[in-house]
Amino acid sequence: MASMRALIFDLDGTLVDTVYPHVVAWQQALEEAGMTIDGWRIHRRIGMSGGLFTRAVSREVGRPLSAAQAEALQKRHGEIFRSLAQTRRALPGAVQLLERLRELNVAHAIATSGRHPEIDASLEALSVPASTIVIDRGDVARAKPAPDLFVTAAERLSIPAEECYVIGDAVWDLLAARRARMFSVGLLTGGYGSDELLAAGAYRVYRDPAELAASLDELGVLP
Amino acid sequence: MASMRALIFDLDGTLVDTVYPHVVAWQQALEEAGMTIDGWRIHRRIGMSGGLFTRAVSREVGRPLSAAQAEALQKRHGEIFRSLAQTRRALPGAVQLLERLRELNVAHAIATSGRHPEIDASLEALSVPASTIVIDRGDVARAKPAPDLFVTAAERLSIPAEECYVIGDAVWDLLAARRARMFSVGLLTGGYGSDELLAAGAYRVYRDPAELAASLDELGVLP
Repeated sequence: MASMRALIFDLDGTLVDTVYPHVVAWQQALEEAGMTIDGWRIHRRIGMSGGLFTRAVSREVGRPLSAAQAEALQKRHGEIFRSLAQTRRALPGAVQLLERLRELNVAHAIATSGRHPEIDASLEALSVPASTIVIDRGDVARAKPAPDLFVTAAERLSIPAEECYVIGDAVWDLLAARRARMFSVGLLTGGYGSDELLAAGAYRVYRDPAELAASLDELGVLP
Repeated sequence: MASMRALIFDLDGTLVDTVYPHVVAWQQALEEAGMTIDGWRIHRRIGMSGGLFTRAVSREVGRPLSAAQAEALQKRHGEIFRSLAQTRRALPGAVQLLERLRELNVAHAIATSGRHPEIDASLEALSVPASTIVIDRGDVARAKPAPDLFVTAAERLSIPAEECYVIGDAVWDLLAARRARMFSVGLLTGGYGSDELLAAGAYRVYRDPAELAASLDELGVLP
């Protein structure tokens, strides 16, 4: 059997510890706009595209939004998020895991529903070199749970989808991976339960990037 | 078979939407004190007593805390929490559920690891009358996952433990319920996955107080 050849990582919540400030920032931005929505319902939607998210929420509270309103909401969310998450912190083992993949020449990329400049601080926290392939929301027509981000990452890596793992913390990553015909691995760092990740298609679930780094042999990605 | 006779509710996260601001407030207070801990690890500890929580965290980061330091940390958490959760909001259906239990004369109480004055805004958001039995951290020697809060609530209701349901959003509620020899029901409002709640002993899991209110017949508590 040929080894699996690439790892494609989600960014926020998977490599960087940002989920909870995102939840509180969305809840506050929505509250200010007169839309009340429970924290856990926001949490379970984090990681889909901001556009899909605002549409889903406005439908849920029965208040359809214009494109301009949705954009204003996303902007306000970004402001509150940056004030809450002033120190952007890599999750345990994330920096070392990426370093190790570079040393071992294991192909990898980052594919995120986020956009510049919001993701810049997260990429900085990971100390990735400019040569690391990063696909963001601006590179594709549709964000997760559409497969576009992962498909584009595999194309840039020149590796067939069937030989890629997606690593993500949210069910949206795992659904998008299945649609891209990729395997996936779930991390608990986004606050989902293990069973939710397995039900969404994760082949394995690890606690955080550190546990994943210690388990690379279980994934068959090492040469 | 005699019907189950009482419902004992957790407060924060079960009746009032407070889990996510609590997570962010703890993370920020700990960061200020030089202790870095992942959001999801804080999330999974919310609902145990503040004392246990600070000890667990300081052990995890390898920095034992003095009693004075632990108290300062709890105080700082409270300050940040109140600034983040300025509008304390009852979860969907919570106010109506408690009203309905009063109308139907179904015995019930609230039992929380929180303390006055921090819980006052949550109780206000629920519009409970002064006659509602509320057991808080100050009433017992040990908070959840010790059974004391629930045992004391059942005593005040004069109903045997075996005839009480505990309703909670965190595994700590469900573990404490088992130790009190009570049945339990989990709600998804705290951001745990359904399977985590079932594994901790929940007899049933509902989305929120509204779904619970619509399902009272499944619990055998109606006369």
